[in-house]
Amino acid sequence: MSTVTGTTTGAGPVRLTGTAHTTLHPATEARITGGFWAARRRTNAEVSIPQGPAKLEEAGNLANLRAAADGKGTFTGDFQFQDSDVHKWLEAASWQLADNPSDTQLTANVEELTSLLAAAQEADGYLQTFYQVKHPELRWRELDWGHELYCAGHLVQAAVAHHRATGRQELLDVAVRFAALIDSVFGPDKEIDGIDGHPEIETALVELYRETGERRWLDLASYFVDRRGHGLLNSGVDRGHDRDPGQPYWQDHVPVREARTVAGHAVRQLYLLAGATDLAAETGDPELRAAMEQLWQAMVETKTYLTGGVGSRHEGEAFGDPYELPPDRAYAETCAAIASVQWSWRMALLTGEAKYSDLVERTLFNGFLSGVALDGDRWLYVNPLQVREDYDARPGDQAARRTPWFRCACCPPNVMRLLASLPHYVASGDAEGAQLHQYATGVYAAGGGTVRVETDYPWNGRISVTVEEAPADRDWTLSLRLPSWCTEFAVMLPDGAAPAESGDGWVRVRHRWSAGDTVVLDLAMAPRITHPDPRTDAVRGCVAIERGPLVHCLEGVDQEAGVRLDDVTLSPAASLTADARPDLLGGVTVVTAEGRRRSDGSSVRLTAVPYHAWANRDEGAMRVWIPTS
Amino acid sequence: MSTVTGTTTGAGPVRLTGTAHTTLHPATEARITGGFWAARRRTNAEVSIPQGPAKLEEAGNLANLRAAADGKGTFTGDFQFQDSDVHKWLEAASWQLADNPSDTQLTANVEELTSLLAAAQEADGYLQTFYQVKHPELRWRELDWGHELYCAGHLVQAAVAHHRATGRQELLDVAVRFAALIDSVFGPDKEIDGIDGHPEIETALVELYRETGERRWLDLASYFVDRRGHGLLNSGVDRGHDRDPGQPYWQDHVPVREARTVAGHAVRQLYLLAGATDLAAETGDPELRAAMEQLWQAMVETKTYLTGGVGSRHEGEAFGDPYELPPDRAYAETCAAIASVQWSWRMALLTGEAKYSDLVERTLFNGFLSGVALDGDRWLYVNPLQVREDYDARPGDQAARRTPWFRCACCPPNVMRLLASLPHYVASGDAEGAQLHQYATGVYAAGGGTVRVETDYPWNGRISVTVEEAPADRDWTLSLRLPSWCTEFAVMLPDGAAPAESGDGWVRVRHRWSAGDTVVLDLAMAPRITHPDPRTDAVRGCVAIERGPLVHCLEGVDQEAGVRLDDVTLSPAASLTADARPDLLGGVTVVTAEGRRRSDGSSVRLTAVPYHAWANRDEGAMRVWIPTS
Repeated sequence: MSTVTGTTTGAGPVRLTGTAHTTLHPATEARITGGFWAARRRTNAEVSIPQGPAKLEEAGNLANLRAAADGKGTFTGDFQFQDSDVHKWLEAASWQLADNPSDTQLTANVEELTSLLAAAQEADGYLQTFYQVKHPELRWRELDWGHELYCAGHLVQAAVAHHRATGRQELLDVAVRFAALIDSVFGPDKEIDGIDGHPEIETALVELYRETGERRWLDLASYFVDRRGHGLLNSGVDRGHDRDPGQPYWQDHVPVREARTVAGHAVRQLYLLAGATDLAAETGDPELRAAMEQLWQAMVETKTYLTGGVGSRHEGEAFGDPYELPPDRAYAETCAAIASVQWSWRMALLTGEAKYSDLVERTLFNGFLSGVALDGDRWLYVNPLQVREDYDARPGDQAARRTPWFRCACCPPNVMRLLASLPHYVASGDAEGAQLHQYATGVYAAGGGTVRVETDYPWNGRISVTVEEAPADRDWTLSLRLPSWCTEFAVMLPDGAAPAESGDGWVRVRHRWSAGDTVVLDLAMAPRITHPDPRTDAVRGCVAIERGPLVHCLEGVDQEAGVRLDDVTLSPAASLTADARPDLLGGVTVVTAEGRRRSDGSSVRLTAVPYHAWANRDEGAMRVWIPTS
Repeated sequence: MSTVTGTTTGAGPVRLTGTAHTTLHPATEARITGGFWAARRRTNAEVSIPQGPAKLEEAGNLANLRAAADGKGTFTGDFQFQDSDVHKWLEAASWQLADNPSDTQLTANVEELTSLLAAAQEADGYLQTFYQVKHPELRWRELDWGHELYCAGHLVQAAVAHHRATGRQELLDVAVRFAALIDSVFGPDKEIDGIDGHPEIETALVELYRETGERRWLDLASYFVDRRGHGLLNSGVDRGHDRDPGQPYWQDHVPVREARTVAGHAVRQLYLLAGATDLAAETGDPELRAAMEQLWQAMVETKTYLTGGVGSRHEGEAFGDPYELPPDRAYAETCAAIASVQWSWRMALLTGEAKYSDLVERTLFNGFLSGVALDGDRWLYVNPLQVREDYDARPGDQAARRTPWFRCACCPPNVMRLLASLPHYVASGDAEGAQLHQYATGVYAAGGGTVRVETDYPWNGRISVTVEEAPADRDWTLSLRLPSWCTEFAVMLPDGAAPAESGDGWVRVRHRWSAGDTVVLDLAMAPRITHPDPRTDAVRGCVAIERGPLVHCLEGVDQEAGVRLDDVTLSPAASLTADARPDLLGGVTVVTAEGRRRSDGSSVRLTAVPYHAWANRDEGAMRVWIPTS
């Protein structure tokens, strides 16, 4: 069914070392071969990623690289971190090449951009065109706004992906040269004792350690993690109208080990925590692990939207106070959803706890996926849970309207790299067996066995898992995550298998397996009404509609003629009906319910589509949370 | 009782010309001599205003003027509009001198600053130290961010106030020189066909026309009003990290006559509308008047907080969409409340409708007055309707915490000038008689008569109005605004007076008056529960407590030990009790009610203080809107 044939062995963003102190290890092989995510990944492979080079050319990113290489020309673009769009696209393309090594066009594009980066790199290893072309005198001089280590981090991640997926060395050489320069400049007794205003280098350096085996990168990551929160930032460079965004914006307000809640700029916070978790995974540092557990819990309990989105404030693109979760002014940046997935997956591997992959599921199917249009070529930067009839999509405000590309284009290539590496997030293994964290049709090798998954999830709750390979000489445990939204399920076991145990979010089947043995997990998918935490002020007196892992929403376009979304109410006791609609939005299941017009008390049939599919038709009103009166 | 003895004849910010096309004219004399506002004005006169010169010295504003005068030195401060703080303080001090002409210290301070401004002014009339000292090459070159006409406007307002209050010419000469330069540079066929990114010059020029009688200032104001909304802005000057805030921010997205709702930066929007209303008042332009009426109605119905505050978004300090009124992230800048009062008062004069002064009352007693601490020396820039227990007052975010002064210090001198000119907003007159718009103990001459008001408003609803002077030869009408919050009232009339008519928000008493005749208006002041508009999403399922014109709020410090504000509920049917508490917050009436703890269902006595008095004790949680469950 699919031209996407899966990721080659071990090619994913987190490849733990043999000495890592984690409960689980990622699958050694993971291929998504069909179903929901295969279709989305095909659009990513066939539409989104191929558009990258042209978009980067139009936006000037490639011209900047040529200007740095030639030593002439001017810088194009508004941001110091323009290069990172190139790096993230290269990472996405690299993971995609693991799927399709024979894609000659993509290979040629990757090689061309790699050559461009190599040509743009300075003799000493430095590579950031903004400072090379526009402000050479400011190299390392404005660490708060500069994004130099941030860009280096994305370069390293791209290079690791390229090396891991293709075995090619060229981009890794570029990245290692830049990392070596950084290692020579930054450190307690070196030229600069400092950190970057935007975390990202930390997780990248741990991955470089994993890929090269060189301990220096782990040590450098450790340095950057622990020097943060000591007020090293603020370059003092005059920035005209800029307001000081404050230390939490830079993640420099508190050492990460002492933090008790997530705060400040959401993407910065979450990239930092992904890196700190990588560090804890490789070093076994119990203090760092405990801090991560505490911070994750605080985030999910008090600062996470129903969609998995995070970031409550446009101002500073930031986390808000606990329970400050406005649906209309939700920032919930697509990049923050991606960062949340990256962090939670690392926490899942570190601890083995299902709750982390529960959040990954919620985020992937809702607050992340809303970031890309069904057709793969328009994007959302912010992902609100409400848009009013009279929404004013004013310039200067990150608008809740799909856009072909952004002036600050961090999100699109970030979506591309997550979709391209998605198989990596599905399964893991340990000494006892394999764990399925997400449900996607495909083949996954982990924990000494191989399983084949068949499912029409999330439209249908039936998941069939066939063991293709397992230890013949001993019992082996297949663990299936039981989503926290699921209150009713059935498990069908092969003959002779012991009854499944469930608890802590896992259904565990221990058995002496024969090839072909099948376990079927059937999750009841009745649509349901969800009530908010009573402390979440902004959606008090409202309910949401969910079905399986999907959050639904009302879009104006789906409602009866003349109905305004600011006039409809839904009783919490309303009966909900789910209907497959193959004609709608590429094929979705909608939920309908009898609601009322507040203005005249008349009844009205409400139709709720999956949130991730919103904003794919006419612009109009949308809401996830529906007033009960 | 008071050292504040009132404003001299006619000294107020709106002095209509004899040919103005308004329904009402401001009082010709207005003195507040006692009661609530006299006490607040005394603090303003004795604490706030006297601190001004020292604050301006510390912040560098005066050093900037000296640097411009001397042609040497550097510019201090972060903003182009630093000078406007000086101008606004001078306006405040000037209105204050109308009260206390014998205040020699204040007179000396005003003269010193006036001399400093005169010395700093260029030979051609230009006066803005940022461009004089720091960027002379950019004069008139960045009209979007430059604030040159904005500062000129505040200078003109200060100069008019000084001239009107004291009869002195020096500051007016400075202002007229600058205005003449602007008139020589800006115009359809002049060097620059352009407008300023921050409206303010418009209302100032109309006032200069009123003060000098020179028609050129009215014509120039008309030009600036009508050239706005045609996309003239955007200087193209490279501003580094600045995001383009968008045309609504500058009020350049739509011509003011075509606008259908208030939008963009709230202070910019409201200063512009005050100026446009001034213009309509003097020219009688019916199209402009109709536009103002429509915009005001849209604002009050869909974009105004219960406190009268406006501006729903921190991002861009802006109005939000209709019904987007988050209590926690309310921006509700103190300056926006002031601008709203200024605009609504002009609308009240223009139309004679009571609803405009209704909003003035709501704003004065709540969202404006919260901007200054009871002790007169700490300030709020933003005025939220909710602060959580775990509120993170992070730097870089305009915090809901009182501050002695601000880096961007627009609000404190703005509060000072409104309090100093407050008597002007109380009364008006027309050919039929006098109208009392606000209730403050004092003496007011308007419409050919003079009345003396005695009241303990807003603590008590009894307002006694004694006619001291009225036409002896004909009936004369005393009109008392009946606040829209009032559902029950009584009027006691002098013997022989015709029964009072009420309608359209006015209680009108027509009578052949004798000196000493007294009318008593008794407004029932029982505390009440207020429900929000059901479309206001952010406070659905909540109620507020009000009493008279005062919005009340819960502050953590007033509640029983251990009570968290995110755990309390209040039934809409709860019985409310008002108690005078002379010991509390300088003497307030509190409202108490039986509420419940959501966590355990237990009952709890809730104490609500007037919102304007919040944040005068320990920092802590606060909320205006209380969940009902």
